[in-house]
Amino acid sequence: MTARGRTTSVLVTTVGAGDRSRRSDRLVVEEPLQLRLDGHLVATTMRTPGHDYELAAGFCFTEGLLAGAPVRTVRYCALGPASETDFNVVEVGSGGAPVPTPRLGTTTSSCGLCGAASIEALQARLAPLAAPVPLDAGVLASVADRVQSSQQLFAATGSAHAAAAFDPVTGEVSLVREDIGRHNAVDKVVGRLVLDGGLPATGRGLFVSGRASFEIVQKAWAAGFGLVAAVSGPSALAVETARAANLALVGFLRRGSMNVYAP
Amino acid sequence: MTARGRTTSVLVTTVGAGDRSRRSDRLVVEEPLQLRLDGHLVATTMRTPGHDYELAAGFCFTEGLLAGAPVRTVRYCALGPASETDFNVVEVGSGGAPVPTPRLGTTTSSCGLCGAASIEALQARLAPLAAPVPLDAGVLASVADRVQSSQQLFAATGSAHAAAAFDPVTGEVSLVREDIGRHNAVDKVVGRLVLDGGLPATGRGLFVSGRASFEIVQKAWAAGFGLVAAVSGPSALAVETARAANLALVGFLRRGSMNVYAP
Repeated sequence: MTARGRTTSVLVTTVGAGDRSRRSDRLVVEEPLQLRLDGHLVATTMRTPGHDYELAAGFCFTEGLLAGAPVRTVRYCALGPASETDFNVVEVGSGGAPVPTPRLGTTTSSCGLCGAASIEALQARLAPLAAPVPLDAGVLASVADRVQSSQQLFAATGSAHAAAAFDPVTGEVSLVREDIGRHNAVDKVVGRLVLDGGLPATGRGLFVSGRASFEIVQKAWAAGFGLVAAVSGPSALAVETARAANLALVGFLRRGSMNVYAP
Repeated sequence: MTARGRTTSVLVTTVGAGDRSRRSDRLVVEEPLQLRLDGHLVATTMRTPGHDYELAAGFCFTEGLLAGAPVRTVRYCALGPASETDFNVVEVGSGGAPVPTPRLGTTTSSCGLCGAASIEALQARLAPLAAPVPLDAGVLASVADRVQSSQQLFAATGSAHAAAAFDPVTGEVSLVREDIGRHNAVDKVVGRLVLDGGLPATGRGLFVSGRASFEIVQKAWAAGFGLVAAVSGPSALAVETARAANLALVGFLRRGSMNVYAP
């Protein structure tokens, strides 16, 4: 396996009713990625290699670490003699972001110690969204189908998440990213938009292949998406956060039906 | 919503083919929990309230923070005038655990910067497992059914993960825990065993309702489980880790078939 490959092969024994077969199976690659901002370690995440620059830029943006500063450079850091490890450290260089504070676990310490405080911390740095987005069940179902047809990693392995940016009016999907982690897939989408100067994503939709947690809604809000459409359900805190953001939140997006939780 | 409730109700609009209905929907609660060990902040995780002591004890154990020290006390920390926030900080008191080093993101800095180094870091603190466990497709399928019948949170909300401890010979399920996060559900199972003096879980199986990532296998290995059975697929690094641990790893556990990835 190379550090930059997204899948690898292993031998597996498939056991069925009364029979066993030995065959080759493709699995999704999971490798640590250390993220640095202006020389400071900000996170280590287990991710699927590929689009690492987007992941790094997106993470720094959606977590509020850039605080409005632009991304000036993104590069792999060589730590010693050239090896695959060199592709597991990415450095984002900003134009004046504040010195980051350590992030422990899944939330920053500034998120507060209850859900309400977590939302208040976001409200302190993010304005509510203004533009309403259309919610058409047929269009959103078509988005799910279009994203699925682009999920090469999922097609190969059966276990990878996807996130995508789309147009809620036409259903056009402009960007799909996959990763073993939902949060990483979202950061890769947002990071691509950061690097392209495409933010805020006003009036656009963010699709996620799994559940909508607080952090997914937080990342969508930070990027300015007007809508999050999730294949599975949201958490209660995700709904409260979306309502505070004036962000449309759709869950259980299935062929023929969907639930609208916010605004 | 109270901080200790596991579900809450929200109003939702369900949009189907040509019709819309407004109704009450139950959602899984997600709230931050700050974990402390001997006075030191070790992590903040977004979790579903309930079994918080188990989550705290299990996290400290599976992440290697206890380093063999026993858990002497587990308690909620009051931070000020009594409020629900008081139930979002849990302090584990150990009998001599080393001072914890900060954990950034999903892995500790000691995990190294590539998959091989992550496995080596585990091998430095965990011995390979010795006892082989039986792998019976029929028994394991029955475990999935038994766990599902205990998934009250999933039944109510359609979006919660489960982990369970079971006997690979009889299929008996002794312990089921649910959470919005897979890692938390596993930590709650392990934490219950820590508090009951039930570790190592030699010869027993750990069931997870989703995918098997590196961290899930790491936690199972730390607790001494001989088998991890996952409903979805493993990552490549999870398979490499299980093989290094001599831990049986079953993925895509479905009615009638399963894949055996390790040892």
